[in-house]
Amino acid sequence: MADSTAPTRVMMAVNESSLKGYPHPSISCRTAFDWTLSKLVRSNPGGFHFLFIHVQVPDEDGFDDMDSIYASPEDFHQMKRRDKIRGLHLLEYFVNQCHQLGIKCEAWIRHGDPKEVICSEVKRVQPDLLVVGSRGLGPFQR
Amino acid sequence: MADSTAPTRVMMAVNESSLKGYPHPSISCRTAFDWTLSKLVRSNPGGFHFLFIHVQVPDEDGFDDMDSIYASPEDFHQMKRRDKIRGLHLLEYFVNQCHQLGIKCEAWIRHGDPKEVICSEVKRVQPDLLVVGSRGLGPFQR
Repeated sequence: MADSTAPTRVMMAVNESSLKGYPHPSISCRTAFDWTLSKLVRSNPGGFHFLFIHVQVPDEDGFDDMDSIYASPEDFHQMKRRDKIRGLHLLEYFVNQCHQLGIKCEAWIRHGDPKEVICSEVKRVQPDLLVVGSRGLGPFQR
Repeated sequence: MADSTAPTRVMMAVNESSLKGYPHPSISCRTAFDWTLSKLVRSNPGGFHFLFIHVQVPDEDGFDDMDSIYASPEDFHQMKRRDKIRGLHLLEYFVNQCHQLGIKCEAWIRHGDPKEVICSEVKRVQPDLLVVGSRGLGPFQR
């Protein structure tokens, strides 16, 4: 049972909190992350490789900010840029955490319907494990 | 991330192979067990505590052995005793494996519908994780 094998690849879908303000991870995905650290990774950071995916929904992000008026293509361009920055800040949180704990990781953003995108990314990336935030449901599905 | 916390309690539902002969674990539950060892436990046996449950279906086990004739209460008593021995042999396999690897474990038998019994045992025992054999489905559900 020595760790001669490749690290266990844990894909984790992360999203922002629905609370407004500086982008920070939702409670459910932070709880799932902490659970994975304390219950699976435990004292063995070298045995795991985290893959963070953040799916942005094109029709949702930003459009409910009623303090913004979109009057030109440039407005939409800026909105997309801002969404991207928010997404990067979110991923930065998890990458920083992993870095501090000595866990290798990768993180990236995709756009579309989260359920569909996560499923297609699982097929593409073939992780050993998929962890998603609960929300009353169990956090684990493969 | 030191292992100062209690071990991660992994409940695992195990069953016999449907092949006849000396009781041995099904391929799917052995695969799930090996997967859990190589992907989650890895080099950290002290961080995990396995809980093996084997659910025996009263109306199924033994009754399809057409070489037996049940003519007295004693016949049924013997059948039950034989089922119990088969179940114990099955659990012995996993307990031995854990013992060799230095993983703490417990194992027990219950009777009834596996789905119902597993769910009620999860509620009772409150493991951190439930692992069941796949069979085309994912092996992980909490």
